[in-house]
Amino acid sequence: MTAPTRANPLPVTLADAIERQIRDGAFKAGDRLPSLREMAALHKYAKNTVVAAFELLVSRGLIEPRRGSGYFVLPQQVRKPTDEEAGNLGRAMDIVWLMREQLKTEPDALAVGDGFPPVEWLADVRLDKYHQKVVRTGLGALFRYGSRYGYAPLREHLVRKLADFGIGAEPRQIVLTQGANEALDMVIRYFVPPGGKVLVDDPGYYPLFGKLKIQSAQVFGVPRQADGPDLEVLEQLLITHRPRLFFTQSLAQNPTGSDLSAAKAFRVLQLAQKYNLLLVENDPLADFKATSSPRLSALDQLERTIYIGSFSKSFSAALRVGFLACSPDLASDLADLKALVHVSSSEYCERTIDVMLTEGHYQRHLNRLRTRLQQANEKAVALFESVGAEIFTRQTQSLYLWSALPGVDDSLTLAKALLPQKIVLAPGRIFSVDSSAVTPWSRFNVGAVGDPRFAKALRAGLRSLAR
Amino acid sequence: MTAPTRANPLPVTLADAIERQIRDGAFKAGDRLPSLREMAALHKYAKNTVVAAFELLVSRGLIEPRRGSGYFVLPQQVRKPTDEEAGNLGRAMDIVWLMREQLKTEPDALAVGDGFPPVEWLADVRLDKYHQKVVRTGLGALFRYGSRYGYAPLREHLVRKLADFGIGAEPRQIVLTQGANEALDMVIRYFVPPGGKVLVDDPGYYPLFGKLKIQSAQVFGVPRQADGPDLEVLEQLLITHRPRLFFTQSLAQNPTGSDLSAAKAFRVLQLAQKYNLLLVENDPLADFKATSSPRLSALDQLERTIYIGSFSKSFSAALRVGFLACSPDLASDLADLKALVHVSSSEYCERTIDVMLTEGHYQRHLNRLRTRLQQANEKAVALFESVGAEIFTRQTQSLYLWSALPGVDDSLTLAKALLPQKIVLAPGRIFSVDSSAVTPWSRFNVGAVGDPRFAKALRAGLRSLAR
Repeated sequence: MTAPTRANPLPVTLADAIERQIRDGAFKAGDRLPSLREMAALHKYAKNTVVAAFELLVSRGLIEPRRGSGYFVLPQQVRKPTDEEAGNLGRAMDIVWLMREQLKTEPDALAVGDGFPPVEWLADVRLDKYHQKVVRTGLGALFRYGSRYGYAPLREHLVRKLADFGIGAEPRQIVLTQGANEALDMVIRYFVPPGGKVLVDDPGYYPLFGKLKIQSAQVFGVPRQADGPDLEVLEQLLITHRPRLFFTQSLAQNPTGSDLSAAKAFRVLQLAQKYNLLLVENDPLADFKATSSPRLSALDQLERTIYIGSFSKSFSAALRVGFLACSPDLASDLADLKALVHVSSSEYCERTIDVMLTEGHYQRHLNRLRTRLQQANEKAVALFESVGAEIFTRQTQSLYLWSALPGVDDSLTLAKALLPQKIVLAPGRIFSVDSSAVTPWSRFNVGAVGDPRFAKALRAGLRSLAR
Repeated sequence: MTAPTRANPLPVTLADAIERQIRDGAFKAGDRLPSLREMAALHKYAKNTVVAAFELLVSRGLIEPRRGSGYFVLPQQVRKPTDEEAGNLGRAMDIVWLMREQLKTEPDALAVGDGFPPVEWLADVRLDKYHQKVVRTGLGALFRYGSRYGYAPLREHLVRKLADFGIGAEPRQIVLTQGANEALDMVIRYFVPPGGKVLVDDPGYYPLFGKLKIQSAQVFGVPRQADGPDLEVLEQLLITHRPRLFFTQSLAQNPTGSDLSAAKAFRVLQLAQKYNLLLVENDPLADFKATSSPRLSALDQLERTIYIGSFSKSFSAALRVGFLACSPDLASDLADLKALVHVSSSEYCERTIDVMLTEGHYQRHLNRLRTRLQQANEKAVALFESVGAEIFTRQTQSLYLWSALPGVDDSLTLAKALLPQKIVLAPGRIFSVDSSAVTPWSRFNVGAVGDPRFAKALRAGLRSLAR
């Protein structure tokens, strides 16, 4: 049944030979190829053969004819998708490095820069105890794809959760995703064309920066202050660049731990309206904060806000369940985009979350979590004050403490000094849009810095740097 | 703490006013704006104010100065990411419709065009029975992110599975994904720049087409024959367009059900070598076929092949676990890309699959599945022959039967005729790169056509069309 191999016709052979010469650099971008007549004489081909070969090379995107002056070699970037795309990944390489470190599990290492709560804080959720319920909730659901929006009862639960935050949403405004990160990625793919302009908190959530770099977006950082974004810089960026989107974390912001004030929330929304800006409010630590905390989405009611939430930090990151809430039309489009890309999210995991929320004493778990968080914050602040560190903002319900240690101009130096003792810091520059910027700040996980090994290593490290 | 609102400086007010006029269409792309002097006179502004306003509009990408002739309005496409991106989704809209239909669960509807095995074929996998094991396998793993490659024991299991297929791979060559669809999407995002050229089976896997359209790829269809791709067309496309990637299903191809012959597999690889083509071999029904079936990846040993697999069709689509296997360097890059986009896949689901594979009598389940599949294929072939239908290729281990029914020139007509009886067909055009092409073919799910309702409705439908 296989077609026999035919010898290549002459124009193809000639085109292949010239292509090799171009790729080997014998002809460079901008070079004029020999004329048809010269080429025909050189290779002893009929002129028609050379014409056909040149046309093939044009269709391969290697050369172009210019009226009256012959064929010229084009720059080759389009012919190298591999390198170019590896370049996209390459641009995000510093972030890649950090993601790798985050996901590593080296025994004995103390990751005080980690972005995740201590596992023992979460383990009181008895996943094993409720499992029979999950597998018995529906036969098909354990085997089939889910709906494009995600498991309906969980979305109804989220409607009530958002109502507690003062955000009115119907189930058709909620799309379940594979963690908050898929939600961010879908918003980027939907709104940001290559070269598109977006704003982010600076310092901010570096995995977001990575996704924006992959999409070749132009990213502008809005300096984060103790009560929210720097409004003057925000308005200047809006005037100059007219970005479509601003990705921001209002509460327990990663990495500074700071909260948006109500007054600033109002001003940010005014600016968004004036400059036709969409606000993407990422709120992964929502369950740690008071429901009445000022949220952009609560003020705006999802008109020009997209709210993104997650169960990764308060329950389980291994289930990979997050969600977004927005206007009904946009939600439908994003649900379609999700179906095109991933068919569906895992209804299996979504049912697990749903069972936990309804039967798993989730509220009691959260209360315990908040108590632990408050104690950890108090201990962490005491430790950092005792060594004379600057603390960006004192919080009681944040996983992150953003601090500049005395005598440390570049927090990367400190991170390197502590690494041999297997203490892994998160130096500030990785949270900056300009990752080469020198900064004295670092992000600390309040749940991890309570380990006595850290206090000891920190004091020793500061002494050695002071010398 | 909030900065007081300042009144906008005059140039901003003027720039805003002109921007509104441009957006409202008062000035169109290519129009010359009034001169500085005219504008200053009109608005009673100082000329310097007008200059500053024009400069703002230039920086907003709305107008451009042309030497000696004033300021001209630019086309606005860059200023409309929303519409443009909705356009990307719009281009995939026919596919979106089908995805929606697939994911709908309407009671009583008989989806004979469905791409999924009957749930009762899968339900003998006792997910509930093995669950305690999953939740007891590790504490942190139930709460934390997984590694960037995915759960190591499952990857080791896949090494053995691939070895059964004759594909040699180390664990570091395997990346776990959220179903085969995330694997396809990652390969596309890594290799295909906007406008990049790729080849696909035609007819072929339409959710793949959707992902390629989102990425603005140029997609060329390689006609699928009973024994694999049409080699003449394949070579012609390679010569003319020099695509970097060819996405193909070797076995039980979706939608034709056809298998690649060993002879053609060899020729495809020869062509891939000659034209520097990467082959992406998607193999979602691998577990239904004999391990010795000819696979491109087995011949080539993952040098210029990327192998993609899934547990969705043979075990559970609700767990969303798939994988890809490729060269070690590429696997590392793709694992990084996965971490950037989604942090990690669900180790919770990966552990569930792993427990099932090791303790769940998975092999016995597969044997039952194959027996059922063979019986269903025999019944389906008998039914279609009895109505005089053309069958593309007779298989014993395919979920799909590709058939053209007598007297039906456009299978969409038949699909519409059967829809009122809640029988949902998958007409051939949705599997075609050119979705407007009229075709007599349809895809039938052999597990669904055995329902007596279908035979009755089919005969009646054919009679009514013949009239």
